[in-house]
Amino acid sequence: MRAVVFENYQSFPVLKDVPRPVPGPGEVLLRVAGAGACHSDVAVYRDFAEGQPGAQTPGFVLGHESSGWVEEVGAGVEGLEIGGAYLVYGPVGCHRCAACAAGADTLCRNAATNPYMAIGLGRDGGMAEYVTAPARNLVPLGDADPVAAAPLADAALTPYHAIKTALPQLAGGGRFALVVGLGGLGQIAVQILRALTGATVIATDMKEEAMRTAEAAGAVVVPAGPGQVERIREITGGRGVDAAFDVVGASPTIATCAASMAQGGRLIVIGIDGGPYEWSFFTAPYESTISNTYWGTIPDLHEVVEMYRAGQIVPEIERFALDDALEAYRRLEAGELSGRAVVVPHGN
Amino acid sequence: MRAVVFENYQSFPVLKDVPRPVPGPGEVLLRVAGAGACHSDVAVYRDFAEGQPGAQTPGFVLGHESSGWVEEVGAGVEGLEIGGAYLVYGPVGCHRCAACAAGADTLCRNAATNPYMAIGLGRDGGMAEYVTAPARNLVPLGDADPVAAAPLADAALTPYHAIKTALPQLAGGGRFALVVGLGGLGQIAVQILRALTGATVIATDMKEEAMRTAEAAGAVVVPAGPGQVERIREITGGRGVDAAFDVVGASPTIATCAASMAQGGRLIVIGIDGGPYEWSFFTAPYESTISNTYWGTIPDLHEVVEMYRAGQIVPEIERFALDDALEAYRRLEAGELSGRAVVVPHGN
Amino acid sequence: MRAVVFENYQSFPVLKDVPRPVPGPGEVLLRVAGAGACHSDVAVYRDFAEGQPGAQTPGFVLGHESSGWVEEVGAGVEGLEIGGAYLVYGPVGCHRCAACAAGADTLCRNAATNPYMAIGLGRDGGMAEYVTAPARNLVPLGDADPVAAAPLADAALTPYHAIKTALPQLAGGGRFALVVGLGGLGQIAVQILRALTGATVIATDMKEEAMRTAEAAGAVVVPAGPGQVERIREITGGRGVDAAFDVVGASPTIATCAASMAQGGRLIVIGIDGGPYEWSFFTAPYESTISNTYWGTIPDLHEVVEMYRAGQIVPEIERFALDDALEAYRRLEAGELSGRAVVVPHGN
Amino acid sequence: MRAVVFENYQSFPVLKDVPRPVPGPGEVLLRVAGAGACHSDVAVYRDFAEGQPGAQTPGFVLGHESSGWVEEVGAGVEGLEIGGAYLVYGPVGCHRCAACAAGADTLCRNAATNPYMAIGLGRDGGMAEYVTAPARNLVPLGDADPVAAAPLADAALTPYHAIKTALPQLAGGGRFALVVGLGGLGQIAVQILRALTGATVIATDMKEEAMRTAEAAGAVVVPAGPGQVERIREITGGRGVDAAFDVVGASPTIATCAASMAQGGRLIVIGIDGGPYEWSFFTAPYESTISNTYWGTIPDLHEVVEMYRAGQIVPEIERFALDDALEAYRRLEAGELSGRAVVVPHGN
Repeated sequence: MRAVVFENYQSFPVLKDVPRPVPGPGEVLLRVAGAGACHSDVAVYRDFAEGQPGAQTPGFVLGHESSGWVEEVGAGVEGLEIGGAYLVYGPVGCHRCAACAAGADTLCRNAATNPYMAIGLGRDGGMAEYVTAPARNLVPLGDADPVAAAPLADAALTPYHAIKTALPQLAGGGRFALVVGLGGLGQIAVQILRALTGATVIATDMKEEAMRTAEAAGAVVVPAGPGQVERIREITGGRGVDAAFDVVGASPTIATCAASMAQGGRLIVIGIDGGPYEWSFFTAPYESTISNTYWGTIPDLHEVVEMYRAGQIVPEIERFALDDALEAYRRLEAGELSGRAVVVPHGN
Repeated sequence: MRAVVFENYQSFPVLKDVPRPVPGPGEVLLRVAGAGACHSDVAVYRDFAEGQPGAQTPGFVLGHESSGWVEEVGAGVEGLEIGGAYLVYGPVGCHRCAACAAGADTLCRNAATNPYMAIGLGRDGGMAEYVTAPARNLVPLGDADPVAAAPLADAALTPYHAIKTALPQLAGGGRFALVVGLGGLGQIAVQILRALTGATVIATDMKEEAMRTAEAAGAVVVPAGPGQVERIREITGGRGVDAAFDVVGASPTIATCAASMAQGGRLIVIGIDGGPYEWSFFTAPYESTISNTYWGTIPDLHEVVEMYRAGQIVPEIERFALDDALEAYRRLEAGELSGRAVVVPHGN
Repeated sequence: MRAVVFENYQSFPVLKDVPRPVPGPGEVLLRVAGAGACHSDVAVYRDFAEGQPGAQTPGFVLGHESSGWVEEVGAGVEGLEIGGAYLVYGPVGCHRCAACAAGADTLCRNAATNPYMAIGLGRDGGMAEYVTAPARNLVPLGDADPVAAAPLADAALTPYHAIKTALPQLAGGGRFALVVGLGGLGQIAVQILRALTGATVIATDMKEEAMRTAEAAGAVVVPAGPGQVERIREITGGRGVDAAFDVVGASPTIATCAASMAQGGRLIVIGIDGGPYEWSFFTAPYESTISNTYWGTIPDLHEVVEMYRAGQIVPEIERFALDDALEAYRRLEAGELSGRAVVVPHGN
Repeated sequence: MRAVVFENYQSFPVLKDVPRPVPGPGEVLLRVAGAGACHSDVAVYRDFAEGQPGAQTPGFVLGHESSGWVEEVGAGVEGLEIGGAYLVYGPVGCHRCAACAAGADTLCRNAATNPYMAIGLGRDGGMAEYVTAPARNLVPLGDADPVAAAPLADAALTPYHAIKTALPQLAGGGRFALVVGLGGLGQIAVQILRALTGATVIATDMKEEAMRTAEAAGAVVVPAGPGQVERIREITGGRGVDAAFDVVGASPTIATCAASMAQGGRLIVIGIDGGPYEWSFFTAPYESTISNTYWGTIPDLHEVVEMYRAGQIVPEIERFALDDALEAYRRLEAGELSGRAVVVPHGN
C-alpha cells in the first residue's frame, strides 16, 4: 500500500509502497478514512537527531490523528462492526499500569520502557491506505463524517483534555477563560469552551483573520501588543481569568497568561514552544496554578466524539489525496494552510 | 409605610400601614425596587397552623425575594453606596457557625434556635416600601434592572444552587440533563443549564405552552404520559440522564426522574410537593444519587447576578404596584400568572 | 485440574475434574494462589432459578476473588513476568465503551449484551488449580503474600470504591463516618476509613465480638437497639455523619443510616439485602444523598493493593486446601467462619 | 492596658500602655488568653520601609494569631457566650464581596482598598491584655486549652489550607506527600497530613532535631544534600510525590520539590522566602501544578479547631508573660525557640 514514511532524522518524509499491515492479537486493521497532518510531525522529521530526548526513531508511517473503517480484526477482538467507522486514539502505553487501566496511556508509568509512544509516533500511523491499532484505541463514530473527524484525535483531544482539567475553575456564573494562539487547536479550544461553560471566552492571536474566526465562534478578542493584559483584566472587571490556555507556550505568551490570572485560576500550557517562565510567590495571584498538559485519555476521546456528533466541535479541514500528502506537509511548513490538512487515501 | 403583612395562620395577607423599619448595627435600609410573590408564601399563609413543623409565626411583612436601593446604613456598615442597587439574600443564619461563615445560612448549624428563617419568612420582608437586611446579605446589581432582578433571589438562586451541585456530573461532552416542571424555577433551570453546560437539556411539563417556552430556550421537550421515560432514555442513547432536577417533587415526578437516571447520575428534588419515593438498591442505576436541595448561598447569589448581568438568565416577570400586591397573590393562587409577579412599590 | 463448579441452579457446588484452561489472545493463565469464598457465591447457587434477573447460567468454576502466579501468556500479551504474583480484577466488560476504557468494567455500557459478568460469575473463576484472565485485569502484588491478598479483589475493593466515592465528604477536620455491619467487608471498611481519613469512625453490628474487632481497629462502637441513632448523633455533636456505609442493606439498617446523616452527607448502600427505603424531601437532611455502589474499578484495585502492601488493609482469612473447598462453603453458609475463607490450591 | 506595639519601620517593637479597645458594632472584646509570635511579625518590623509593597503602616499592636475569652460584645452581636473561649481568625476583608461571603477574607476582592490586612497586621492585634475582633472572626474553642490554641490561627491554619487544597491529589491508597522545612508550620503540616490522609509523608530539613520530631510524628525523613531527590523518588517507587509543601520557599527548596513531583501532583509553596523558580514545559511532570497559598478561611479555621480538640494537631509552644513579650521576639529572631512563643497576658 502507499504510505507517508518518516525515513531519516532531519529529512522530509517520503511517499512510498510499504506492506499492508496485519492486525496482531487484540488489534484491528482499519481502512483509513482520514489522517491529519500535525505540526508535531514536522518537529519529528525536522528537529531531532538520533539520541536526542524526544526523538522518534525512523522509519515509520506518520499520522497520529486518523480515522477509518474496520477492515479486519485480530485474534481475540470482539464486538467491533466490520465496516464501522472509528476514530483512532493515538497513544499506546503498557496496558498494565494504573494509568493505562484508566485509559490514560499518556501518563503510562512505564513510558520509559515502552517500544514507542503512539500510533504514528514510533509505530506506523494512519497516513497510509491502512493502519492497525489496538481495539481499545477505537472510538465509534457512528454515522458522523470520518474524514473531518480525523483531526479530533489530537487537535481536539489535546485542548479538550486541558479544558476538562480546568472545568472546576470555570463552573458557574461570572467566569472568564483566555485562549492564546488561534491556530487549529486554539479555534477548537474556543468552540469547546463556548459549548461546555458559561464563561466569557477571551481570545488573542497575532493574526487578524484568526481573531475574526474566534469572534465568529463567540469569543471576545483582544489584540496582542501593549496594553493587552490591561485590556484582558478590564474585561474581567479587574479580577483576571479563571482559566488560561496557552496554545503557543513561548515565554511571552506564558507571561501574558500568568499576568492575566485571577486568584485560584488555572493556567495550562498546551503549546510546546518550550519557553521557560519565571514563577515567583509574590507575583502569582494567590492559589493560581501553572501546569503543562499532554494529549488526552480514551474516555476524553469518547466525549470529544460526542461533541463532534452534536455539532459542538466543527474542525476546519482541507482535504488532500494520498498522492498529495507531501504537498500537505509542504504547505503546513510554509504556513499556507487555513485549516487542518487531512489526507484522504480512499477518496471522500 | 405600606406593606403586605401575614397576620394570621391560614388567612390571606393584608395590605396595611406599618412603621418604616430602622436598620440595626450591621444592617442596611433599602428602598424596595421589587419583591417577588412566591408559591412558598402561599404555603406560609394557607397551609400551616400554630405549632406545626415548618410554620412561620405571624405577623411579618412577606417578600423573601427582593431588591432595592440603599437608603440608610446602620452602625458599623461600610463600603456600601447610598442609592446603589442591591439584591437581597433572604436566609439569615446565626452568623457564627462554619456554615454561615461560608455564606450558607441555609445550612446554619443553629437553625433550630434562630429566631426566624429568612427576610420575609419570620422577619419582615421586602413586600413593602422599605426593608432592612444584614449588610452581608446584599449583592450589588450595578446598572442592571433591579425590578426584574428581584425573583433571582429565590426563583433563580434555588435552581442555580441545585445545578451547581450537579455540575461535576454535567462536565464534559455527551451529557444529558432533565428538568421536570416548567414553571418559573424550571424555566430558569433550563436557561442556567443551557448557559453553563454543554448538556442536552430535556424538559417536560403538563402544559404545552410551558414546553414551547423551554423549547425556545434550547431544550428538547418530551410530553408527559405513557412512554415518557422510554422517550427520555432514547434521546440519551439508552444511557439515561446525568442529572435530573425535579421542580415539582411529587411521587410520580420523582419516579419519572429516578427511572431516567444514568449510572452515577444525580437526581435533585427541588420542588416541595413532598411526595415520598421508594428507593431500592436493585432499581437505582449504580452510583446514581438522590437528594433534596434548599435555596442557595451568598456566593451562589453573586454568581446568579453575574449571569443576569450577562443576559444568561432572563426572568419572565409581571409587574404590580404595591396597591395591587394582594391581587398578585390572588392571581398566583388562581394560576393566572404567566411570569413571576413582582411588586414594585416605587414605580418602575 | 480440580475445580469447584456451580453445575445447577439452587444446588450446592461440586468439586470435580475439568480441563485446564488455555489463555486466549490478550489473556493470561495463572496458577492460583488463593480464591476467596464470598456470600454472593452462595446467592448464585442457592437463590436463583433459570431466567430470573441476576441469575448466572451454570456451569462454571466459582471464585471471583482470586490471585495467582503467571504460568503462561496468550497471544499479544507483553510485559508480564512469568512466575510473578498478581491479583485478579473480576469484572469483565465489553472493553470498548467509555466506562471500560476508564477501567470501570462494572459500569460497562454494554452490560446487557456481554456474555458473562465476571471471572467466577458466568465465566470460569479462580476456585481451581488454574484460572485465565484478560491481562488488563491483573494487578501486580510484588512480594506481598498472594494468598491473603485474594479477598482484596472483592471484600476490600467493594468498600474501597464506596469510600473513595465519599472521600470529598470526609476531607478535612471534624468529619464523621458510620459503618453498619461488621463482617469481612465492614471490618475492611473501618481499616480503610481509619487509614485514608481523619474522620471519627463510628461502627455498629449485632455481634459484640465484631464490635470489639472494630474497636481494636480504632472505631467508636455503638450497639444496635433503641437509642442508637441518638447515640450516633451525640458523638457527632448533633450534626450527624458525613458519610455512612451500610454493608447490610436491609430496610432497618438503611433507615438507621439515613436518620444519622449530616447535611450534605453521603449514604452509600453496599450490602445487597435489597430492603427498600422510603425517601422523603422533608426527612432527608438537606443535600444529603443516598446511592448504591457496585464492586470497583481496575485503578481502584491498584490502590487497594498499595494499601495492602503498606499494611493499611489486613484481611482476616482462614485457609482451606482445594480438597476442602466445599467445606469452606458449608461453613460460610453455617456462619461458622470468623475470617474470609480462602481456598489455597497449591499449598501455602 | 499593656501591649506590644510596632511603632516605627525597621525598629524593634515596644511594650507600652495603650487604651483598652472598645468593640464597635458587630465586634467583640476579648480578654487575651494567648498570642503567638510569628516570623512574619519580624518581617513587618525589620524589613519594610514606608511605601514599600507589603509594608504595614505603624503603629499598631502586634499579634495576628490570638485567642481569648469574650469580655464584652458590641452592638448587634448575638449568640456569643460571655467568658467563652474563642480563637481569632486574623484576616479582615471587605465583608461584602463574594470571597468574604465565603469566609475567605484572604482572597477579598477589595484588598487594594481595605484599610488594613488583618488583626495584628495594620489593625491592633492580640499581643496585649485585650483585643477586639469582628464577631464572625471568632471560632469557639469549647473546653480546649486556649493558650496552646493561639498559634493555630496562623501556624496551623496556613498549612491546613494548603493541605486541604491538595487533598484530591492525596485521596486514596498509594499516595505520597513531601514537606520541606520542619519549623513550626512544617511540623504541624506533618501532623495534619498524617491525620487526614493515608499518604506516606516524606519530610526534610537542615536540622537533625527537626527531622527526629517529624519522624516521631510518623514521617519518613530524608536528609538534605546530594541525592536527596533521588532518595525521595526511590521511596515513591520512582513515581514522585502527589503533593509537596514547601514551607521555606527559597529557589533551591522549590527546585527540590519540583524535581520530586509525580504526574498530576500539586506543589504548593507556603514559605515566603520568595525565591523564583524557572518553570518549563519539558521539565515539569505532565499536569503537575505549582502555586502559592496564603493563610486560610474561616471555615478552615473551624476545622483546624476540630482537629486540635481531637488531638490530631498538637502545637509545641513556649509560654511567655506579657512582660517578657519582647524577650520572646528577641529569641525568635535569634533562633533560640524550640516551639512557638505564646505570650500569655493573664497567666495560665
